[in-house]
Amino acid sequence: MTDNLNEIGANAKKAAFQIANLDTETKNQVLNEFATALTEHTNEIVTANNKDLDNANDLPAKFVDRLKLTPERIDGMAEGLRQVANLADPIGNVDTGFTNKDGLIIEQRRVPLGVIAMIFEARPNVSVDASALTFKSGNAVILRGGKEAINSNTTLVDILRTVLNKNGIDENAIQILHDTSHETANELMHLNRYVDVLIPRGGSGLINAVVQNSTVPVIETGAGNCHIYVDDSADLKMATDITVNAKVQRPSVCNAAEKLLINADVADEMLPTIAQALEDNGVELRGDDKSRQIVSSIKPATADDWSTEYNDLIMAVKVVDSVDDAISHINEYSTGHSESIITNNYAHAKKFQQLIDSACVYVNASTRFTDGFEFGFGAEIGISTQKLHARGPMGLNEITTTKYVISGDGQIRK
Amino acid sequence: MTDNLNEIGANAKKAAFQIANLDTETKNQVLNEFATALTEHTNEIVTANNKDLDNANDLPAKFVDRLKLTPERIDGMAEGLRQVANLADPIGNVDTGFTNKDGLIIEQRRVPLGVIAMIFEARPNVSVDASALTFKSGNAVILRGGKEAINSNTTLVDILRTVLNKNGIDENAIQILHDTSHETANELMHLNRYVDVLIPRGGSGLINAVVQNSTVPVIETGAGNCHIYVDDSADLKMATDITVNAKVQRPSVCNAAEKLLINADVADEMLPTIAQALEDNGVELRGDDKSRQIVSSIKPATADDWSTEYNDLIMAVKVVDSVDDAISHINEYSTGHSESIITNNYAHAKKFQQLIDSACVYVNASTRFTDGFEFGFGAEIGISTQKLHARGPMGLNEITTTKYVISGDGQIRK
Repeated sequence: MTDNLNEIGANAKKAAFQIANLDTETKNQVLNEFATALTEHTNEIVTANNKDLDNANDLPAKFVDRLKLTPERIDGMAEGLRQVANLADPIGNVDTGFTNKDGLIIEQRRVPLGVIAMIFEARPNVSVDASALTFKSGNAVILRGGKEAINSNTTLVDILRTVLNKNGIDENAIQILHDTSHETANELMHLNRYVDVLIPRGGSGLINAVVQNSTVPVIETGAGNCHIYVDDSADLKMATDITVNAKVQRPSVCNAAEKLLINADVADEMLPTIAQALEDNGVELRGDDKSRQIVSSIKPATADDWSTEYNDLIMAVKVVDSVDDAISHINEYSTGHSESIITNNYAHAKKFQQLIDSACVYVNASTRFTDGFEFGFGAEIGISTQKLHARGPMGLNEITTTKYVISGDGQIRK
Repeated sequence: MTDNLNEIGANAKKAAFQIANLDTETKNQVLNEFATALTEHTNEIVTANNKDLDNANDLPAKFVDRLKLTPERIDGMAEGLRQVANLADPIGNVDTGFTNKDGLIIEQRRVPLGVIAMIFEARPNVSVDASALTFKSGNAVILRGGKEAINSNTTLVDILRTVLNKNGIDENAIQILHDTSHETANELMHLNRYVDVLIPRGGSGLINAVVQNSTVPVIETGAGNCHIYVDDSADLKMATDITVNAKVQRPSVCNAAEKLLINADVADEMLPTIAQALEDNGVELRGDDKSRQIVSSIKPATADDWSTEYNDLIMAVKVVDSVDDAISHINEYSTGHSESIITNNYAHAKKFQQLIDSACVYVNASTRFTDGFEFGFGAEIGISTQKLHARGPMGLNEITTTKYVISGDGQIRK
């Protein structure tokens, strides 16, 4: 099936104008109806999902698991929709306001971005989560999911659009591309006339392709080569617990730690314990010469290891001479996502937080907390690793913009 | 002269790390020394500028005027530097802070973007203004000015770099490309490894080329097809004064009005007066059939007129049936910069401010106020017409970003 991108874009822009001006109560009611509709259409969703699963026979088990929708998972999506209904609506907030020297009252009012495009990979829940967050924040959305989930995604989106329609809301506020070819994705990346921002969600291959090709402004999400630095004043138990948690609690996600740096003064004492705890949890360790002299089971690391995001039970270990060395190494190799120092030294903690150039800089906590839910935003549309517009977990506020609304009584410029 | 962009980028990134962590007092002192140094080197600057002027013999007078540096203009730049020294430093501000459910203290701290690249056209004062604003906000800058101003720009930048050097600050915090070829500009647009944001300043040709080609994130500035809408309840004198001010006070700039929409119910009464006042100020009027039936001196407008930014003493006039028609027309043809309604109708004023999708939406005031100085920001690096990151006049705050700084005592994720 081919899509007419210009038509889709123009329809999205038209719908965006309508939903930008819906009141919060209407939006919340529709979100709750989305939830009810998903539960009511469980069988239909499972049937569509089964078609995708049938086509996914040759794919790895991990991939198939992400694709699979069960009645329980559909209930989970519905619950997510109800949670978004309960979140505060950022639209219409006045962020700042002041009166200028001429007596103009100038207010900076929060408004939707307009049309958001999302390009994502296999997980069909993204189409529902993204629709909920963009709708609540008054934005229209154009979804482009992976071909592996096309039957699930189109069924889910059709259910949401039917609810919009019943409520007298332009159903083109939520659209999905039926054509999952690269050519069509590429067209979407150049739809500057209609699309205000493009958010890719997926592996680094997808994200890099979007950054390289898109002329529509992009918010980069998700690449995480996260570091734990164990300082010379670290508490050994805390260092072990945090390192294990950051590495193994969910190794496939972007806020999982990939690298362990340890201070040379305590490496002899602490590294064997930490390495043992990691290996007990099935982690393969790769390290520099110094770390391998301390723990013989560590395999040699190559130059590539320092910049690799494994998303797996692998961790590279390096012995560093000081907090300054740790900071230099991290600022050189990190993707700017999340880093943590384990220390009891006030000056080192302060220095690490000041000098590390990443979205989230922790003292004595697991990097796994970099997440919209954990931060208390209630939901997230992704984690930005760029510096423009949004940095770190992106909640509703991060998918809005502002405009200046100025009230005068005849002022002209002299 | 050729430039090694990778070397320039790496040097900028290194310098950025140093100046991100300078205290405000040091930065202010350096800015004041910049000012003194410019004044002291007036002769040297004028000599370099004369070389550029000699090469500009064949260029239009307006262009030559923008290029020209006199002792008075150099004093003006020095005064601008001192003003930037007096502005509040946004770096280190904590924008929000909260404690999450696990007891993590999470602060959103304002930090520099890192390395900012600017591509601009003839005016050499941009190299000094941009250096001042990026330095004050802790960012390194890579400047790429037009070839017409190369001698002026490099001389100005050399003076600033000498001051940095004397103060023990990495002079690569301010760099300028000596090669003004398109190839080198293109290389700069793809220097994602080192450049955090690219800000083009100039005509729409330059800005479109950057948006189309750059893989580095861009902040679009400056295109302004601004509208004045005279509502049926407008005060005629106010409507005339604001329209004339918005059109003629400085027609070459982006916040000057280019279009006049007038309500059909008052067009017979008001348009002759407003048109006469504009024509008395040398404005050429182009209009739709209805406006030409009312004022015979109005020339016919073509379809292109509605989307054209003249930057000149030309204005297109259209008679519309209602505030809703005015809003539809503006949202279709505007570049999203600045629009103003002249009205005494509360509901119309509120509707216009709510529904117009532009950076600055005025009631009863000239669009010429869309400006960092007029808003009270003290200075501006440009006016953003995009929705991502910054919208409207960009002061120091808009060329910074944030990072989350998180303080725990051993928290791990469950």
